[in-house]
Amino acid sequence: MPFTVPALAAAGPQAPLESTTIERRDPRPHDVVIDIAYTGICHTDLALLRNHWREGIFPMVPGHEITGTVAASGSAVTRHSAGDRVGVGCYVDSCRECENCLAGEPQHCRRGEVITFGSRDYDGELTYGGYSTRIVVDENYVVRIPDGLPLDAAAPLLCGGITMYNPLRRWHAGPGKKVAIVGLGGLGHLGVKLAHALGAEVTVLGRSTAKREDSLCFGADHYVSTAEPGGLQDLASAFDLIVSTAAADVDVEAYLGLLRLDGVLVLAGVGTEPISLHGGLLNQGRRVVTSTKNGSIAQTQEMLDFCAGHGIVAEIEKITAAQTDKALDRLHNGDVRYRFVIDASTFPAQA
Amino acid sequence: MPFTVPALAAAGPQAPLESTTIERRDPRPHDVVIDIAYTGICHTDLALLRNHWREGIFPMVPGHEITGTVAASGSAVTRHSAGDRVGVGCYVDSCRECENCLAGEPQHCRRGEVITFGSRDYDGELTYGGYSTRIVVDENYVVRIPDGLPLDAAAPLLCGGITMYNPLRRWHAGPGKKVAIVGLGGLGHLGVKLAHALGAEVTVLGRSTAKREDSLCFGADHYVSTAEPGGLQDLASAFDLIVSTAAADVDVEAYLGLLRLDGVLVLAGVGTEPISLHGGLLNQGRRVVTSTKNGSIAQTQEMLDFCAGHGIVAEIEKITAAQTDKALDRLHNGDVRYRFVIDASTFPAQA
Repeated sequence: MPFTVPALAAAGPQAPLESTTIERRDPRPHDVVIDIAYTGICHTDLALLRNHWREGIFPMVPGHEITGTVAASGSAVTRHSAGDRVGVGCYVDSCRECENCLAGEPQHCRRGEVITFGSRDYDGELTYGGYSTRIVVDENYVVRIPDGLPLDAAAPLLCGGITMYNPLRRWHAGPGKKVAIVGLGGLGHLGVKLAHALGAEVTVLGRSTAKREDSLCFGADHYVSTAEPGGLQDLASAFDLIVSTAAADVDVEAYLGLLRLDGVLVLAGVGTEPISLHGGLLNQGRRVVTSTKNGSIAQTQEMLDFCAGHGIVAEIEKITAAQTDKALDRLHNGDVRYRFVIDASTFPAQA
Repeated sequence: MPFTVPALAAAGPQAPLESTTIERRDPRPHDVVIDIAYTGICHTDLALLRNHWREGIFPMVPGHEITGTVAASGSAVTRHSAGDRVGVGCYVDSCRECENCLAGEPQHCRRGEVITFGSRDYDGELTYGGYSTRIVVDENYVVRIPDGLPLDAAAPLLCGGITMYNPLRRWHAGPGKKVAIVGLGGLGHLGVKLAHALGAEVTVLGRSTAKREDSLCFGADHYVSTAEPGGLQDLASAFDLIVSTAAADVDVEAYLGLLRLDGVLVLAGVGTEPISLHGGLLNQGRRVVTSTKNGSIAQTQEMLDFCAGHGIVAEIEKITAAQTDKALDRLHNGDVRYRFVIDASTFPAQA
């Protein structure tokens, strides 16, 4: 039987999040029911809530950085058991038949993966995310949270962590490689921790000098303020890999100039404005521009295991359900260190 | 002693090529003197002659697709002997000390490689290219032309061939890979032959249908006219690699849409106008945009040996020295199949 749970929902793109109840589906044979412990607040939540990227589907219950424990399992579930510590990230289903799904990259499903909230599943049902107390998800789209990771500070790994880990692995961040992370926010601070743990020499490129100390604390070897005159001048051809986490106004040409031969610029944050660059900057040094989009379920598990092995979690500010709307405004203004996480135990008990 | 040789030189960007004589340097211990047999006419010749990319250095003797035989060797030369069939490509020296030179990629020399014409060598001497009968080049920047390759049709391999071979190898064109070549000109027709010989499934994307037959003849499996309505519609996510040889007006976004997951768009022709694209096209499918710039001496040799092994040469129209100026105009108008090659035996005997 479908069941109702407390949630925070927005009625439309201008509406605030309001405390309400939503219906979760009757668990299917391969579903697990998860008691949500914590949900991270991602920039995507803001972008989709406020129609920055596209027309949203409302009512919307955001949240795709979810941790919790398994409360119940469908009859055919084999991957998870009641009481297991688990997580859910950016998508909750994919076609499982297309070449990308078969290649183990369901996040690039050709049919379109079912994203965790603000989307429709293949039956046409609206998906509701983690700003809630329970969620029902197919076991194949649920990862295990290793014992070493606390459920609160691990939540942002489910999107922020994998979004950084994927390009760092794809482009071989490791010993002997010089990696720059542009921006020290929710994504960037995880990028610094991961790149450092992978063995790379890490430089943070930030707008001010205010985050120098934090950068070094998270494992960066260097911090360079891009706002200081000439700040980037000494860095020509300095990096093998630059991962930009800035959402907009990325000076692609300036960053390309910082890449060595065969260097790669990954635009992890994608703005709505087109990117413009002179082809000569790609030609000189065979530089590469690309982007990234979270990762597979298998790689998300690998990333979580890596984080457990290296003691990597997000820096978080824990909030109550009632504080979420205000937290979104603070996030919009860049006022967070470094990720808000909603404590699901603070939702009002169900009527 | 320096010596004089016949050449074709332009006095300035608006001036025609005129028959003249130029001075070649006294061979140093590591120099070889090459009797030029043939020189291909590359789009770069036009671009530099006419200041399309930058202010040129005049008088200019173009030509960087040079084949010939060794006439004499400096005292310390070990790589080549008198009578050897040899070639010279886009550059004739590099610093040999920077990280790119030491990594075996002198074409990306950080000090700036000495390009074969219209440049200055490290002594400040103006470099004169292959529109001439003899050239003096350091043995380390001279490649061997395998016996199986004729000197005339092999000449365009020295720039056109390596410019295609480098990205095809770098991005793993081979069995099981679907490769598109945009444009069937001097570069493109070599790209088709090379990609086919490497084992890839090759599609030519051309503006008209006029080159369909040639494309298939050169080894393409498919030809698609980009001018026909809907021509590209069936090709969404079709390719692993697209190498665009168009010099300008490349519809980067349209080609990005044709790439599969992790697909790569190589802009082998770089125009003067900036490229514009929406980041979402990189984000969806983790697509890559990059460029390329000829190749190392070692890889040029590898490419020539590969061509000899697979019977690959350029399609050429052989011309006399006196026809060169008119041939440049024809090249400018796209009226060549597929590469002009100057027969150096047609230069007027030296006064």
